Amino acid sequence: MKVTKFGGTSVASAEQIRKVATIVADDVERKIVVVSAPGKRHSSDTKVTDLLIRLGETYLEKGYANEELEAVLRRYEEIAKGLELGQEIIDQIANDLHTRLTFNQSNPGAFMDQLKASGEDNNAKLIAAYLQTKGMNAVYVSPKEAGLLVSDEPGNAQVLPEAYDHLKKLRERDEMIVFPGFFGFSPDGALVTFPRGGSDITGAILAAGVKAELYENFTDVDSVFAANPNVVESPAQIRRMTYREMRELSYAGFSVFHDEALIPAFRQKIPVCVKNTNNPSSPGTMILAEREYFLNPVIGIAADKGFATIYVRKYLMNREIGFGRRLLQIIEDEGLSYEHIPSGIDDASVILRQEQLTDEIEHRILARIKEELCVDDVFVEKDFAMVMIVGEGMHNTVGISARATAALARAHVNIEMINQGSSEVSLVLGIHEKDADAAVRELYEEFFGGAEETVQ
Amino acid sequence: MKVTKFGGTSVASAEQIRKVATIVADDVERKIVVVSAPGKRHSSDTKVTDLLIRLGETYLEKGYANEELEAVLRRYEEIAKGLELGQEIIDQIANDLHTRLTFNQSNPGAFMDQLKASGEDNNAKLIAAYLQTKGMNAVYVSPKEAGLLVSDEPGNAQVLPEAYDHLKKLRERDEMIVFPGFFGFSPDGALVTFPRGGSDITGAILAAGVKAELYENFTDVDSVFAANPNVVESPAQIRRMTYREMRELSYAGFSVFHDEALIPAFRQKIPVCVKNTNNPSSPGTMILAEREYFLNPVIGIAADKGFATIYVRKYLMNREIGFGRRLLQIIEDEGLSYEHIPSGIDDASVILRQEQLTDEIEHRILARIKEELCVDDVFVEKDFAMVMIVGEGMHNTVGISARATAALARAHVNIEMINQGSSEVSLVLGIHEKDADAAVRELYEEFFGGAEETVQ
Repeated sequence: MKVTKFGGTSVASAEQIRKVATIVADDVERKIVVVSAPGKRHSSDTKVTDLLIRLGETYLEKGYANEELEAVLRRYEEIAKGLELGQEIIDQIANDLHTRLTFNQSNPGAFMDQLKASGEDNNAKLIAAYLQTKGMNAVYVSPKEAGLLVSDEPGNAQVLPEAYDHLKKLRERDEMIVFPGFFGFSPDGALVTFPRGGSDITGAILAAGVKAELYENFTDVDSVFAANPNVVESPAQIRRMTYREMRELSYAGFSVFHDEALIPAFRQKIPVCVKNTNNPSSPGTMILAEREYFLNPVIGIAADKGFATIYVRKYLMNREIGFGRRLLQIIEDEGLSYEHIPSGIDDASVILRQEQLTDEIEHRILARIKEELCVDDVFVEKDFAMVMIVGEGMHNTVGISARATAALARAHVNIEMINQGSSEVSLVLGIHEKDADAAVRELYEEFFGGAEETVQ
Repeated sequence: MKVTKFGGTSVASAEQIRKVATIVADDVERKIVVVSAPGKRHSSDTKVTDLLIRLGETYLEKGYANEELEAVLRRYEEIAKGLELGQEIIDQIANDLHTRLTFNQSNPGAFMDQLKASGEDNNAKLIAAYLQTKGMNAVYVSPKEAGLLVSDEPGNAQVLPEAYDHLKKLRERDEMIVFPGFFGFSPDGALVTFPRGGSDITGAILAAGVKAELYENFTDVDSVFAANPNVVESPAQIRRMTYREMRELSYAGFSVFHDEALIPAFRQKIPVCVKNTNNPSSPGTMILAEREYFLNPVIGIAADKGFATIYVRKYLMNREIGFGRRLLQIIEDEGLSYEHIPSGIDDASVILRQEQLTDEIEHRILARIKEELCVDDVFVEKDFAMVMIVGEGMHNTVGISARATAALARAHVNIEMINQGSSEVSLVLGIHEKDADAAVRELYEEFFGGAEETVQ
């Protein structure tokens, strides 16, 4: 049994949904199909999820949002017409949205969550209806019916352990199941959405629940690439990579998967295959628990921008037991998460995502550090990028860091930070944002310069 | 005015103290002389401080220690005879030690402190007496008389701010002052010793107090070397280096100065000169606030052994606000200090000095981390060395880390950790202890291979 998930661009139009039908019909093992909300049809298009956010926000603000509602409905109508479905499914979706808009607004987060989730939910119903017209024994199953229980954190749901026991029963059903991604229900029955990459999360949870042999993730690229194609020209396709490599790369801005989305599948050691809806015969990228890495110790180069550093200096800092803990306490009190804490004898830096640092928070943190920790100096520097070199072979191959740092020297890129030592599969280099593209290109050249079109 | 400090080997024998007399007579600016206790006369000798520790411990245990007392007195007798001083100074020292042994034993730390401090104290009296016989207007001044006030932490005293106001008055005295290193007095009048490098600390505090033009530190080497001479053959002598460079190097096991000893002088921007009592015409090493570094971005290579890593892995760690702080809290609760905390997405390592980790503490820490932080994995790895590449030019010179990591690759040394990013003057590489010497040699070759005998 395979769990097969289709991303937003794969279900963005009637034409795309026809491809989906062909793909699921092509393999009897594709018994559970997870779908996203209709995504962009072209680069300047707007995703249905964004239309729904606009609808919800306008409605909360003004008490009406006819135009915005119309924009959502138009997308479904176009799709339904293109698939030659009757008026019934359109009416059903329109009724559903009207009902959702009457939801209690006292908790705006929960209001928005059930509206946003309608994108996936209605698309799943629509696609199930279409597959039925093609003679398939397909049926829409809601997360509530399936028992996909999650924690009650709007926009940030975590799957609850008992969900897997419920989902296991889906294995016994005869029909092909069409399941909406992106959301689950709290034990109290409230709809709650997952964080970024929500539909990928749903697919991974289902794959883990039914103990699928494979979790297929259909998107709009032939494979995961060894570097960002917008930065490096025609980067190598990755044939096989490990969960850990995927996780590190997705964390550092690889867009195929969002950070953390695949973890439920990883935990059950279910292989994941990334494939292209527009080119299903391409083998795609397999993501596995292990791979042989002697030929390719490095599998990918990623970079993410928007990091800031809080630099703190105090004489005798390293003699002061508890200094680091108290510094992190101040960061924590402001609800911030950090990425790295490189430290010297008399100084330490906290590297975090810059978007978290509003002027107000920054001001407050600096004042507290100065006052409570009696430091000699504290300041914030911004606009750093973290470049990540990822590969299972990193840890056991002498000279990876030498090659990486030499490449940056050749590109005249100054290294502000190096973090190696905890993760066995990545080396992180902190540089100025302006140097990020040049750094990725030179690192790609160093590690993949003579490579074939594919790496594994 | 110069403050001139002589280390243990410089005052270990009559012969050495004659050299001291010649040196202080040679320059009228040498108005304040700080002395250590008599050190080793040859490599298998025992320092007077160690004889005193043996004396105190035996006395605490048995209630008598005649042999141990005799061993201490014999050293002073030999010196006094060699300097043709009379019996009076010997009697004075013997009386002093007898008096100290009658000190209240209810606080063994304080008992040991006043006994240990006698090494410097009596040597200062002896040397003052000798300088007087040579016709110099020299006078012993005690830290109590001079107002060298410190915090009441036996073996770990910190100078109190008001001490500097008191010490400033020494500038007005006409005599040459001979001052014992290693200890001060608490506001309550208790004698308290400094941590490691105690006499260097005293000299630095005095230099800061009297705002000396120069703090001279006489030892038994011609200069600070760019690497450990026991590891690298004939390493280059350093002519000029900055405080920060000295501090980083001494931290990583450079033996000329102990970590933190020079800070009082640094804070007042007083230049420090390291010179050789046995070769006073050699220029030595000047330690300054700033240096030009374009010729020598790197000034030295140091390595220190005996580090352990507590490795912690937990899925979604980086999403868990407060994880790092709670990890450090457990470390802190056991009174441990750590050196570095490299972190990945799902893992973090705490690197600390291994000697702190008794079996019991290690067991307790691992149990708490497992239980309280619900981690997926936690274990300790031992026997790491930290190799430090130090230089003011590190931060602004592209390619230092490239050269360093390439050197280690040539030496087939696997890099377990790299820490760069906070300190602007050092790059720290974590490797296995067994590789430390090879690493230092190859790094020395890389950065000083073609160098002159001296660097600045």
